Amino acid sequence: MLVVMNKNATQAEIDAVITAVESHGYTARPIPGGERVSIGVLNNEGAVDHSRFSALSGVKEVIPVTKPYKLVGREFKSEDTIVRVGDALIGNSRLTIIAGPCAVESETQALTIAGHVKAAGAQIFRGGAFKPRTSPYSFQGLGEDGLKILAKVRETTGLAVVTEVLDLETFDLVEKYADMVQIGARNMQNFSLLRRAGRSKKPVLLKRGMSATVDEWLMAAEYILEGGNDQVVLCERGVRTFVRHSRNTLDISAVPVVSRESHLPIIVDPSHAAGYRDQVMALSRASVAAQAHGLIVEVHHDPGNALSDGAQSLLPDQFKKLCAQVRSMHQMLIETL
Amino acid sequence: MLVVMNKNATQAEIDAVITAVESHGYTARPIPGGERVSIGVLNNEGAVDHSRFSALSGVKEVIPVTKPYKLVGREFKSEDTIVRVGDALIGNSRLTIIAGPCAVESETQALTIAGHVKAAGAQIFRGGAFKPRTSPYSFQGLGEDGLKILAKVRETTGLAVVTEVLDLETFDLVEKYADMVQIGARNMQNFSLLRRAGRSKKPVLLKRGMSATVDEWLMAAEYILEGGNDQVVLCERGVRTFVRHSRNTLDISAVPVVSRESHLPIIVDPSHAAGYRDQVMALSRASVAAQAHGLIVEVHHDPGNALSDGAQSLLPDQFKKLCAQVRSMHQMLIETL
Amino acid sequence: MLVVMNKNATQAEIDAVITAVESHGYTARPIPGGERVSIGVLNNEGAVDHSRFSALSGVKEVIPVTKPYKLVGREFKSEDTIVRVGDALIGNSRLTIIAGPCAVESETQALTIAGHVKAAGAQIFRGGAFKPRTSPYSFQGLGEDGLKILAKVRETTGLAVVTEVLDLETFDLVEKYADMVQIGARNMQNFSLLRRAGRSKKPVLLKRGMSATVDEWLMAAEYILEGGNDQVVLCERGVRTFVRHSRNTLDISAVPVVSRESHLPIIVDPSHAAGYRDQVMALSRASVAAQAHGLIVEVHHDPGNALSDGAQSLLPDQFKKLCAQVRSMHQMLIETL
Amino acid sequence: MLVVMNKNATQAEIDAVITAVESHGYTARPIPGGERVSIGVLNNEGAVDHSRFSALSGVKEVIPVTKPYKLVGREFKSEDTIVRVGDALIGNSRLTIIAGPCAVESETQALTIAGHVKAAGAQIFRGGAFKPRTSPYSFQGLGEDGLKILAKVRETTGLAVVTEVLDLETFDLVEKYADMVQIGARNMQNFSLLRRAGRSKKPVLLKRGMSATVDEWLMAAEYILEGGNDQVVLCERGVRTFVRHSRNTLDISAVPVVSRESHLPIIVDPSHAAGYRDQVMALSRASVAAQAHGLIVEVHHDPGNALSDGAQSLLPDQFKKLCAQVRSMHQMLIETL
Repeated sequence: MLVVMNKNATQAEIDAVITAVESHGYTARPIPGGERVSIGVLNNEGAVDHSRFSALSGVKEVIPVTKPYKLVGREFKSEDTIVRVGDALIGNSRLTIIAGPCAVESETQALTIAGHVKAAGAQIFRGGAFKPRTSPYSFQGLGEDGLKILAKVRETTGLAVVTEVLDLETFDLVEKYADMVQIGARNMQNFSLLRRAGRSKKPVLLKRGMSATVDEWLMAAEYILEGGNDQVVLCERGVRTFVRHSRNTLDISAVPVVSRESHLPIIVDPSHAAGYRDQVMALSRASVAAQAHGLIVEVHHDPGNALSDGAQSLLPDQFKKLCAQVRSMHQMLIETL
Repeated sequence: MLVVMNKNATQAEIDAVITAVESHGYTARPIPGGERVSIGVLNNEGAVDHSRFSALSGVKEVIPVTKPYKLVGREFKSEDTIVRVGDALIGNSRLTIIAGPCAVESETQALTIAGHVKAAGAQIFRGGAFKPRTSPYSFQGLGEDGLKILAKVRETTGLAVVTEVLDLETFDLVEKYADMVQIGARNMQNFSLLRRAGRSKKPVLLKRGMSATVDEWLMAAEYILEGGNDQVVLCERGVRTFVRHSRNTLDISAVPVVSRESHLPIIVDPSHAAGYRDQVMALSRASVAAQAHGLIVEVHHDPGNALSDGAQSLLPDQFKKLCAQVRSMHQMLIETL
Repeated sequence: MLVVMNKNATQAEIDAVITAVESHGYTARPIPGGERVSIGVLNNEGAVDHSRFSALSGVKEVIPVTKPYKLVGREFKSEDTIVRVGDALIGNSRLTIIAGPCAVESETQALTIAGHVKAAGAQIFRGGAFKPRTSPYSFQGLGEDGLKILAKVRETTGLAVVTEVLDLETFDLVEKYADMVQIGARNMQNFSLLRRAGRSKKPVLLKRGMSATVDEWLMAAEYILEGGNDQVVLCERGVRTFVRHSRNTLDISAVPVVSRESHLPIIVDPSHAAGYRDQVMALSRASVAAQAHGLIVEVHHDPGNALSDGAQSLLPDQFKKLCAQVRSMHQMLIETL
Repeated sequence: MLVVMNKNATQAEIDAVITAVESHGYTARPIPGGERVSIGVLNNEGAVDHSRFSALSGVKEVIPVTKPYKLVGREFKSEDTIVRVGDALIGNSRLTIIAGPCAVESETQALTIAGHVKAAGAQIFRGGAFKPRTSPYSFQGLGEDGLKILAKVRETTGLAVVTEVLDLETFDLVEKYADMVQIGARNMQNFSLLRRAGRSKKPVLLKRGMSATVDEWLMAAEYILEGGNDQVVLCERGVRTFVRHSRNTLDISAVPVVSRESHLPIIVDPSHAAGYRDQVMALSRASVAAQAHGLIVEVHHDPGNALSDGAQSLLPDQFKKLCAQVRSMHQMLIETL
């Protein structure tokens, strides 16, 4: 951390900052410049709370230097983490495809779609049983009945299943049925839920919050690792911007940035980023080209009657074609990197 | 809702949309235009799920017309809601001031600050006992000990107290001690928490999410009202934008927009919007000038040693001056509006 | 500037950075930390180009410390600049009100509105003769005829007039008729236009770009001052964010931030920020409460037939009431600050 | 366009809107709904100015239905436009690669880099002679000397050259030397420059503004086509968002959206989107995977000494590898689409 003083800061102000830094157990190293003095704050483990020093008299700005995360960082663990979900692996040079409907609507619906996505080459099945909905009047998911249908899908197809958990009350239940527990964008900073996920034996799919920085997202993952669970997969799903032609703006740069900063795998959800079916194929290919470790794609055989998010769901045939394209692309990249 | 067809949509596609609309129980009203046909969707109560129709063949766009909220809307209840918190009232033409430290750190700290803010004219005391922190390694609040200190503040000063609740597990506890329960920005779409707040007997302070639209925010409040609790105060606290000179960008327009759309009171948190003390006074005055029903301001007598957010806390003297300014301004506005 | 090295940077990499820093004429000061080395770059006048050093091997990040502007900064000139426009002054503790229609449509329209705004207490008249329009098919302004009408308004009412200039070709013309030349948001980084404004004898109203940072905006003003014209007034007019209930999001924090960083006056355009008449009064009062040096407000006596931006124009009666409110508020602030 | 009335709008208010619509020459078609009346505005060519009707009494909202552009739209011309730049073609199923330094610094530098990029397979050379710089104190480009060097590059290598034009004063000069004229992000709504480009015989590369919507961008292109020049290539270069790990956020969705809405080719500038070399490869591949018609990439053989944007320039070897990757990927896509 660097504490930058005003040009006209007095020596007494500078000394007070040095004293404050040292009183918190850090080392202060003044750096006289041409125009102003800055004070380096050293020997801190992890991030220091900004506000301690920016509130002092004569301070212009406080600039963080060290990244705030530890366990999730490449500097802590350099080799890629590989996460196991049922028989599927996510991470390193693999391309793992997760697919299924937004919400589990019925056993027939789930099994029909599961059959299609398995045939196309998906390794994991997705489907919501507890749905976070903006409106209290919208379909909220089938609850435990939905989880039972997911178990049936696993039994019938052999696919592992991932589903979202919304709260502490239903965590045990979701954990019992699912092979992987998803924490959604709206809950990325639900710290109680993150702590509970840290005590889980199941791998966790952690979506990026709608306006979270990569640092905040990695810190959310840090909660889970700190709790004892290092089986975490990050999922970029678009961020909220001024742009209106897509539901969110997919932040493709997050893929190389996360891969450089962290050893955790990162996959992409093109469906929620796009919000419209005709963009999903392009965003999926783009994500694989940027070397995401996988995709999580919404597929529905009858989107006109889907109970949620029909407009962004691929049809089974589109998904099949997509899988073929991204598998070829991934193979080509593996060979040339 | 309006379903806009492609210019070259066939009659069969148009008919299929009409059939789909009617199969969902709505009335379809085709509107032939010069270039293309649009189809009005009528007799829907509340919002219709977009995706049902945007997924159909020949559809260019689906445009919502009706707002999705009901109980929180002015069209449902036209007169202003007034919320009672201890002896304080919030809403209508009042200006209610809430102040205190970011986090309760000790009994001495809380009582010292409470004395200052009461003397300056605050009606409600704020202070966090459970703190949502980006890092698992940061100070997480005193927990129940913090709540007990808040009770002591109430007992000693007569001020009502508001504090944040983070999860279902600690809701009963927070509810027992607090006069008003705060749901923070990160939990604005924690729907389980919103439902629990809907069953509470205590008034709720609902902060706007970091990148929530006003519609999403009002829908979050709708969850609480729908659960049976209509004592909800909305709190604008800035949104995340590209701007870096403040912690968030205060969306002042939200004040008149919410006041037009909803009967619920809206207050402003200038401290989290600004992030820097020297902006807090300006944002506070601006909020009152825009006719917010109140302010929630961070005050600390020793910000250099605050355990969180010291940089954005006002000193007691600054707060006293601020209260005088905004009270005069509010009085003047009441007289001239 | 601070060059932060990777944790595992080699001594050779560190030495290469030092050599590069010194080869550009700066002083390099290595700061060994607990985990990594950082290198301070000293004795630079103004900002150093980041990319010179961030491209070097072993460099993790380059962090600017010094602000890039010079002539516009408070550190260069501490007392407030006061800008004269006709008989009106802008800056320091004054509140100066500019008002008029979006576009000059006819002599009758302009004189009618000028009569209203003068009576209400505006000191400067605004009206566009050359209009920047998103569509080539929209009304583009009356051109020189509009300028002549503005001259007539000045002659008849004694109000100074401000109008926008769009390009180098028409700069001489606009400069001849106007008392103050406006550079619009879309041209904030039209550097040729800024340079031309720097050679003008007329004061300049420089609007903030739609997504400009305060630093970029001040650097745009720096172009004008560097060219020899220090009569510059900055105008905040809202920035583009994800928010849709207003045309732009007014960045109220920009007022205190600019006032701290620069000696130039800053006014606010609530009309373009809001986009809707019912928000304009609230935003205007908020701006004055935040101590903006003035307002520029759109007023139209017949907004339903305005050729542009009718929806955001105040009616003369509303404007009159607004002027009374903000004058009282300003007076109260002057007395209590 | 749809004019939505308040629930409690009176018949007189509704009639007044109908009269207003008809007085502007449109057809009004009232659509009584369950809760409120809406009024369709028909027979308008292109977009209608919102503000005409939103200002009327009893109006809740005005919703545009028709897109504002005409000549650039697929509905106007369905087949892909192919743009010729020297011997190179851009558009339809081609992948065209433009590469070179940010700024032309010297003949040696330009020829060295041109040799590298030609060998790697680029078809067009880029290099700035007039540079738009945030600071008046930064390197502003070599001006006409830079243009002469570009002509030398063309002569020596046979590559076509593209370079940015900043203003009307230098347009003739740039047009004389360049094979393609670039209008930069900061000038996307410099309407005088767009009109001048519309009268040019040279093809135009039109970059998207930093916070422009796709509609605004297409309307900027509409200015050029309306002026008589239909040789326009659009270039996505990232938009400004809250994200800080990249210089801008590449909006990959813009590629499929523009391709659906317009017949003009769209290419991507991964260098300015990323801002950091280590993200450029990923963004380039992502763009090609999303079926952009080309890339414009910054390449420098000595980025540590580049006069601008060194940090985002690829080294010649990286560029060579990139070209091989994206050519394979493009070939694969052509075969499978």
